[in-house]
Amino acid sequence: MPVETIRWKNGKVRYIDQTALPHKVKFIDCGNVKRLWRAIKTLEVRGAPAIGIAGALGVVLGIKDSKSVSGKKLSREVDKVAGYLATSRPTAVNLSWALTRMRALARENSSGSAARIKKLLFKEARKIIAEDKEACRRMARHGARLIKDGDAILTHCNAGGLATADYGTALGVLFEAKKQGKRIRVYADETRPLLQGARLTAWELMRAGIDTTLICDNMAASLMAKRRIDKIFVGADRIAANGDAANKIGTYNVAVLAKYHRIPFYVVAPLSTFDFNIVTGKDIPIEERDGDEVRSIGGKFIAPKRVKVYNPAFDVTPNGLITAIVTEKRVYRKPYSVIARRREAPTKQSIKTRLLHSPAARSQ
Amino acid sequence: MPVETIRWKNGKVRYIDQTALPHKVKFIDCGNVKRLWRAIKTLEVRGAPAIGIAGALGVVLGIKDSKSVSGKKLSREVDKVAGYLATSRPTAVNLSWALTRMRALARENSSGSAARIKKLLFKEARKIIAEDKEACRRMARHGARLIKDGDAILTHCNAGGLATADYGTALGVLFEAKKQGKRIRVYADETRPLLQGARLTAWELMRAGIDTTLICDNMAASLMAKRRIDKIFVGADRIAANGDAANKIGTYNVAVLAKYHRIPFYVVAPLSTFDFNIVTGKDIPIEERDGDEVRSIGGKFIAPKRVKVYNPAFDVTPNGLITAIVTEKRVYRKPYSVIARRREAPTKQSIKTRLLHSPAARSQ
Repeated sequence: MPVETIRWKNGKVRYIDQTALPHKVKFIDCGNVKRLWRAIKTLEVRGAPAIGIAGALGVVLGIKDSKSVSGKKLSREVDKVAGYLATSRPTAVNLSWALTRMRALARENSSGSAARIKKLLFKEARKIIAEDKEACRRMARHGARLIKDGDAILTHCNAGGLATADYGTALGVLFEAKKQGKRIRVYADETRPLLQGARLTAWELMRAGIDTTLICDNMAASLMAKRRIDKIFVGADRIAANGDAANKIGTYNVAVLAKYHRIPFYVVAPLSTFDFNIVTGKDIPIEERDGDEVRSIGGKFIAPKRVKVYNPAFDVTPNGLITAIVTEKRVYRKPYSVIARRREAPTKQSIKTRLLHSPAARSQ
Repeated sequence: MPVETIRWKNGKVRYIDQTALPHKVKFIDCGNVKRLWRAIKTLEVRGAPAIGIAGALGVVLGIKDSKSVSGKKLSREVDKVAGYLATSRPTAVNLSWALTRMRALARENSSGSAARIKKLLFKEARKIIAEDKEACRRMARHGARLIKDGDAILTHCNAGGLATADYGTALGVLFEAKKQGKRIRVYADETRPLLQGARLTAWELMRAGIDTTLICDNMAASLMAKRRIDKIFVGADRIAANGDAANKIGTYNVAVLAKYHRIPFYVVAPLSTFDFNIVTGKDIPIEERDGDEVRSIGGKFIAPKRVKVYNPAFDVTPNGLITAIVTEKRVYRKPYSVIARRREAPTKQSIKTRLLHSPAARSQ
């Protein structure tokens, strides 16, 4: 069963504190927006889809006790809460995507009562969760077709149940392959500095009974040279219109190694991870985090305290290194620009949803 | 001034405990061979040239209190001590090279008295140290010619004063460039799992007043993509006759990245690091170390305790990825097989030294 990493419970946001894993499964009931902002900032809640959900639930949390009666006033409060939450982490687009969706909904309904908007926002947050669950299942099914019985797979960081509302993006594909009876062996990059691979991915994979081997990030090349990796599956935090994909620092490293060793490199991400306003990966904002994340581990310094540090949380893998992008709709191959074009063409989606995804709405 | 990482002092082997750095500069006076074996095994003493010296001093330590009178008997004792020390770490050839040198010397002189052999062995150990110091200085001068004013340099693991009798191999080149007034900036890979880069290289570089930035191993690719690395300098633990070079795990990763980004990749190592008995890197024995080195950091588990781990201490960089090899003799470019051929041709070296390097002596 996937872990339920974040949900609404008794008027609060209940989430698993991912910084306590793998040693403790600790739930936190968060009752205010400032605390939630800190939870996102410090990676207690992490993973692009999961922080999108945290954003949506955060908006609900932020306005649920509002005394406002008028919809206009409440809509302004929603803007404020969403604007604040958006500052917690800059790279993953799912956060701003979910917040934009919540703000647009409040604004569209601001002629009604505050009570009605509250109800609609709560419903919308639940819908975002339901959509993510559904997207996970669909990505998993599309992606599992790329996996053969006996494959050895490498993954980087954590793109599992902890990062989504369901069983994950890249890991979802592996869970589905296992469910289909395919024997797979997975190598998990530990993913310095914050060790999401060692702490979270290894835990999730073992929990699912998958043959798991933990490696340091710098060991993947040695495995590839020995032909011990057949495929690579990773998630993404933001994908530009041309398919360039930002993901956890070290992903680009793996992609270059994959190219050199001719190993397929797959990105698994819901369409909400695409940012069609951004033409290439060069324009994706990359979060730089505190140097002490590198200088110390578990509060203990492992390097000279005053050494300078370069600590970007993400890197960008250019589309040319990506064999395919697995979305909930289908598996896309190059050129990825087709994804943007198809989304802009009229579809069965309601006008409303399209508007929310449109550049105008996104740039708000 | 280079750190004096290992030497003979008052009848004992005095060395810096490298596991206590960078927080403490702790000297250990080691009076018995078993303790020294453990020091090499646990990386209190590390670095290919330094463990060669540890081996030579270890032989002196192991026979200095011997009651044997006959040279034959002492020579057998030397064989035993050397054989035991050789089992501490398998990959760096400098250890077996130094031990072979000590054993051969004892055997050649076994018709004389034990006392004489003791004297000769002590002299030989000092000679090995003196030769390494001289080799460091020469490598540094040859290598520094490859560095331009303003270069940004990446290094992996620790190939500095702590790894040698003087100021190092790869780091020696940087220290020399700095001494020559070239402004350089150095990025140090932290080098998981044992963090030699974060603990030792950062400490040595800062001590020398060099502009140092620490990164996680998986961040180098991101710097290269931004054209922020001009050159790469690393050491080596064993180099095959064709130039394939074994060095700390992750070195091959860096070499592949360098190739992809067209960045020169230099290996700096004394000729004693070459193993001309080994034709290609495929035959270099690679030490696999305990999985807990990956599962835990500073005694604290960072991953599920029962997760499987792959933990090779070294990887092999094929000669095709190496721009040049800097030795004490000169800078060699491809094909590196010329190095083996030149060493086998008659030179000014004494017949004795040649014999010690010959396949017959090496395979003993």
